[in-house]
Amino acid sequence: MNIGIIGIGRIGKIHLTNCLSHFGQVHVVAVMNPSLAGQEFAKKMGVATVSSDPGEVLENPDIQAVLICSSTDSHAEHVEAAALEGKAIFCEKPMDLSIDRVRKTLEIVKECNVPLMLAFNQRFDPNFADVRQRVQSGLIGNIRSLHIISRDPGPPPISYIKKSGGMLMDMTIHDFDMARFQMGCEVTQVYARGGNVVSPAIAKAGDIDFAAVMLTFENGATALIENCREAAYGYDQRLEVFGSKGMIRTENPLKTTNRFSGENGTHSARNLDFFMDRYAESYRLELKAFFDALQNNEVMPATGDDGLKAMEIAEAAYRSIHENRPIDL
Amino acid sequence: MNIGIIGIGRIGKIHLTNCLSHFGQVHVVAVMNPSLAGQEFAKKMGVATVSSDPGEVLENPDIQAVLICSSTDSHAEHVEAAALEGKAIFCEKPMDLSIDRVRKTLEIVKECNVPLMLAFNQRFDPNFADVRQRVQSGLIGNIRSLHIISRDPGPPPISYIKKSGGMLMDMTIHDFDMARFQMGCEVTQVYARGGNVVSPAIAKAGDIDFAAVMLTFENGATALIENCREAAYGYDQRLEVFGSKGMIRTENPLKTTNRFSGENGTHSARNLDFFMDRYAESYRLELKAFFDALQNNEVMPATGDDGLKAMEIAEAAYRSIHENRPIDL
Amino acid sequence: MNIGIIGIGRIGKIHLTNCLSHFGQVHVVAVMNPSLAGQEFAKKMGVATVSSDPGEVLENPDIQAVLICSSTDSHAEHVEAAALEGKAIFCEKPMDLSIDRVRKTLEIVKECNVPLMLAFNQRFDPNFADVRQRVQSGLIGNIRSLHIISRDPGPPPISYIKKSGGMLMDMTIHDFDMARFQMGCEVTQVYARGGNVVSPAIAKAGDIDFAAVMLTFENGATALIENCREAAYGYDQRLEVFGSKGMIRTENPLKTTNRFSGENGTHSARNLDFFMDRYAESYRLELKAFFDALQNNEVMPATGDDGLKAMEIAEAAYRSIHENRPIDL
Amino acid sequence: MNIGIIGIGRIGKIHLTNCLSHFGQVHVVAVMNPSLAGQEFAKKMGVATVSSDPGEVLENPDIQAVLICSSTDSHAEHVEAAALEGKAIFCEKPMDLSIDRVRKTLEIVKECNVPLMLAFNQRFDPNFADVRQRVQSGLIGNIRSLHIISRDPGPPPISYIKKSGGMLMDMTIHDFDMARFQMGCEVTQVYARGGNVVSPAIAKAGDIDFAAVMLTFENGATALIENCREAAYGYDQRLEVFGSKGMIRTENPLKTTNRFSGENGTHSARNLDFFMDRYAESYRLELKAFFDALQNNEVMPATGDDGLKAMEIAEAAYRSIHENRPIDL
Repeated sequence: MNIGIIGIGRIGKIHLTNCLSHFGQVHVVAVMNPSLAGQEFAKKMGVATVSSDPGEVLENPDIQAVLICSSTDSHAEHVEAAALEGKAIFCEKPMDLSIDRVRKTLEIVKECNVPLMLAFNQRFDPNFADVRQRVQSGLIGNIRSLHIISRDPGPPPISYIKKSGGMLMDMTIHDFDMARFQMGCEVTQVYARGGNVVSPAIAKAGDIDFAAVMLTFENGATALIENCREAAYGYDQRLEVFGSKGMIRTENPLKTTNRFSGENGTHSARNLDFFMDRYAESYRLELKAFFDALQNNEVMPATGDDGLKAMEIAEAAYRSIHENRPIDL
Repeated sequence: MNIGIIGIGRIGKIHLTNCLSHFGQVHVVAVMNPSLAGQEFAKKMGVATVSSDPGEVLENPDIQAVLICSSTDSHAEHVEAAALEGKAIFCEKPMDLSIDRVRKTLEIVKECNVPLMLAFNQRFDPNFADVRQRVQSGLIGNIRSLHIISRDPGPPPISYIKKSGGMLMDMTIHDFDMARFQMGCEVTQVYARGGNVVSPAIAKAGDIDFAAVMLTFENGATALIENCREAAYGYDQRLEVFGSKGMIRTENPLKTTNRFSGENGTHSARNLDFFMDRYAESYRLELKAFFDALQNNEVMPATGDDGLKAMEIAEAAYRSIHENRPIDL
Repeated sequence: MNIGIIGIGRIGKIHLTNCLSHFGQVHVVAVMNPSLAGQEFAKKMGVATVSSDPGEVLENPDIQAVLICSSTDSHAEHVEAAALEGKAIFCEKPMDLSIDRVRKTLEIVKECNVPLMLAFNQRFDPNFADVRQRVQSGLIGNIRSLHIISRDPGPPPISYIKKSGGMLMDMTIHDFDMARFQMGCEVTQVYARGGNVVSPAIAKAGDIDFAAVMLTFENGATALIENCREAAYGYDQRLEVFGSKGMIRTENPLKTTNRFSGENGTHSARNLDFFMDRYAESYRLELKAFFDALQNNEVMPATGDDGLKAMEIAEAAYRSIHENRPIDL
Repeated sequence: MNIGIIGIGRIGKIHLTNCLSHFGQVHVVAVMNPSLAGQEFAKKMGVATVSSDPGEVLENPDIQAVLICSSTDSHAEHVEAAALEGKAIFCEKPMDLSIDRVRKTLEIVKECNVPLMLAFNQRFDPNFADVRQRVQSGLIGNIRSLHIISRDPGPPPISYIKKSGGMLMDMTIHDFDMARFQMGCEVTQVYARGGNVVSPAIAKAGDIDFAAVMLTFENGATALIENCREAAYGYDQRLEVFGSKGMIRTENPLKTTNRFSGENGTHSARNLDFFMDRYAESYRLELKAFFDALQNNEVMPATGDDGLKAMEIAEAAYRSIHENRPIDL
């Protein structure tokens, strides 16, 4: 299979390297990046066609699939162009910050009838994927409740926050998707509270930095989500599913498995630093899932609709915070 | 110090045994119990006066303090009588299922100016008490959120449920008190969802068996409480406090510290069975706290007002469930 | 059942209190203690006969069993006297520091045909007992090796060390017994190394403060024992059994189950302080085992021969250290 | 830096892939492999010169360093040839099964004055390296003892065992090196016991499958090593260092961080499968250490002498088993 990549920034580099190291039958034949740095990286990795023109990738007849890893505001445009060229599409999330644009783009994809995977990488984290598989196997019986904790080690720059779509759309969106993924059904009601406990500058930029969300699902189960833009002890990504026959918890992977016992007790290492470390494996596995689905002509394991649904929950959560009442979906 | 005990049922036996084993200067000189079983237990433990008449305890001039461990519907009555006799009072929770009666009884206690401790034993659990102490020491900075999980191993008999005042008043009440205890300030808003996931019989009896509660506190922090009347894996009592400088978690104590590693991974023991095991130490320590406060003329570490406040939160939570909206306190 | 106790020091108090709190059918009718402090403790606990004369206990016709908790150098003498009076005997370890005296005393006990339990309390620790039970159930298949770590929080006073019989006889003896208990067969060879890493004063007193021992058992399995008189992080009592089908490990119980996560990682509590805390439950359970064995006319779960065997291993270990070669048993 | 690789088998592929993914300034310009499979792998990864003739690598003037990853019996020969060509050498362990040959080869390397690193990869495992670093920092004070457990998930084929040099030379050799690495000084005495608990076929092939070793070091500290060719619960690689100020333990990394709590307690995942998973990171980091040492003209972090020392300990351990006595080094 020949593929192209649009955008060789932080995440594009990860995908390109993973293609070379892990996917023997996948050849990255063309790469587009606006600036020189990314272009040079691709050249050194042996990519034949490297350009600043997206057309060299999107219109390349040798290419069956495109990974869209450019800046968020160009996702929808590239997805549409790729769809019109008949390429299979792997798109970083979010597809766009505007729900209306997402809906329009998804319609074009549908009309072009091309496969589209939205990169909800956390679904492919070995821990979370294992939880889902065990829940589906019936190990814990009927789900009664789900608890997700997601705390960043520290807040992003204010410049990022201003373009992020807001914390619920930028950060909690992963947890909305994870909750739907684990529950296997749709949200019917959202109650959310949000505020600023980290930084007045974030408040001044019009965003929250803390949120607590209670979701009700079609199956009657409840999901609680705790989000914060800062945690003094590092990146915290946990999940717990409670069911009629048992409970499964995901703990944070640590930097080492070492434990020091001294006169004040026992000390273990910090959590892995941030998403680049914590989710390194998930980036490889989501790409594998994309290639596997393409090869086997199967439904994509995370779709454009999944992205849309998560955005709708985020919108309802914002409304809930502003009106201080539960919102039906 | 000479004390008396009203009621030698399950909890009365625990207190009597603890007095003998651990409190050398405390003498249990009189015990009242309506039935023979409790009376015989007290006799074998060497209690001098054993009777079915509460007056023999409450009006005994040699006695400075009374532990009220009888059935819930008699608590208020015995508290009032003890107060009028000028005794220091240690009363099992709840003082009554009716908030109005509790208010009235507390007024009498206030008029009589006697010390009263309400037995919120979980405050004295070494784990939870240690959390509170560390939070107060500033270890985790400002509290941002609190998460309490409380799940019973299995539901009580329907007969108990009918007299319990309902799950929020009977079970969640501990968590409402724990949340206030850990936060060190008052609840300003309650949002709750409840339902039946365990047993239709409980629903038929008019009670819920699952609840998820979101509390907002004066300090701006949020508390999430998850309650269920049944957990296949046993009694689950956990707590997590997240603050600006760190986070503290309390895990469940296990039956043994043994771990077996076999071909399916590593297996550790079940949690301690139920509150009699899990909170055994807390029963001893709450009594110690009562005796210490009496001896040092200090404020009781859990008061009648604490009981009242927890009941008010429970009432608001019921209202929130019925009206599906947040309720201000 | 009526019993008497010889010696109300630290361990005698524990047994007396446990009898009162936990063993309803066992009545402590007489207690001997040379000094007043222990006598007064017994009186307050309601013991009828309290004396400084051991005859008042040993020759008391109402008494069926005697707990011998006096100082080590009087154990053998009291055991012999109790045996001659036909009493069942529970004796703190060691029976004597001289193997010859132990052999002689055991012969008298045998001639008198009275039940004798030697108080190897660690066999009754819920964790270690659970390991033994699972191993016997076949859970881990054939034992291949055993690893025991036993480290004290700090060294005892030099005065104690001088009378202790030496570290191998005083401390490691528990591990020799534990190894035999877990293996279920006898030691055939001992190789040991010992030295001083803690304190020159201990070396000057002629004792070691560190030992590493390799035992070979009849079943071909190996046991490794690590001992030290001091551990900066507190009392450390662990055990690991490795077999053909799996492995079981016992971890140290901690003071609390709390874990604090801060910028340097996650911190958990210290181990329980010392044997009084760590083995509190084992003291209750060994007494229960003694009373149960008496009542059911069963073989004692830790016998005088067990004590003798452990001493023989200790002697061989000393020889191994001095001659720097493995010693056959 | 331009390098060549001799041998593209299991470990050669790992190194080649790591060079491409992680070491931007390192160019693998030539590869030798006797069979086609390895040659094709190298071609697909873009290596320019791929040959079955070692001379094409060793005599290539563009190449500064060579990774020797061929079969064990050719290591010494390739090392000597590379040394004579003036190349820096990274050699998989062991350099040879014959100590005499190793000594001879090391002399040639010394005469040629080329840098040589012996691939004791476990030194670069993030966990073990972190232990060493903390021990060196003084965190645990003076080392008193070290305990290493190394158990394979299952025995290798008999054909492998026959060519392996025996378990102590093939498997325990890693632990001998690790013990020296952690202690930072030399072994003075070895006592070992070995036997067959896994498979009669291994005994028939003249090898042991279980060993327990006690090492004494110059600093007076003791190291205990437990080895077994089979563990029902999977690959087990642990280490514990006990010192005057504390203790550090390395636990096994698990396949996931998930824990399932059901009616029989809590279950966590199996250990990572085998050295390819467990030590994946160490292979990358040892290569990084080699390139860094070359670039900075520093002493190699694992030398030919380290390999020789470990072999001398292994030989002494064999002698100890056969003569059942401690052997001085």
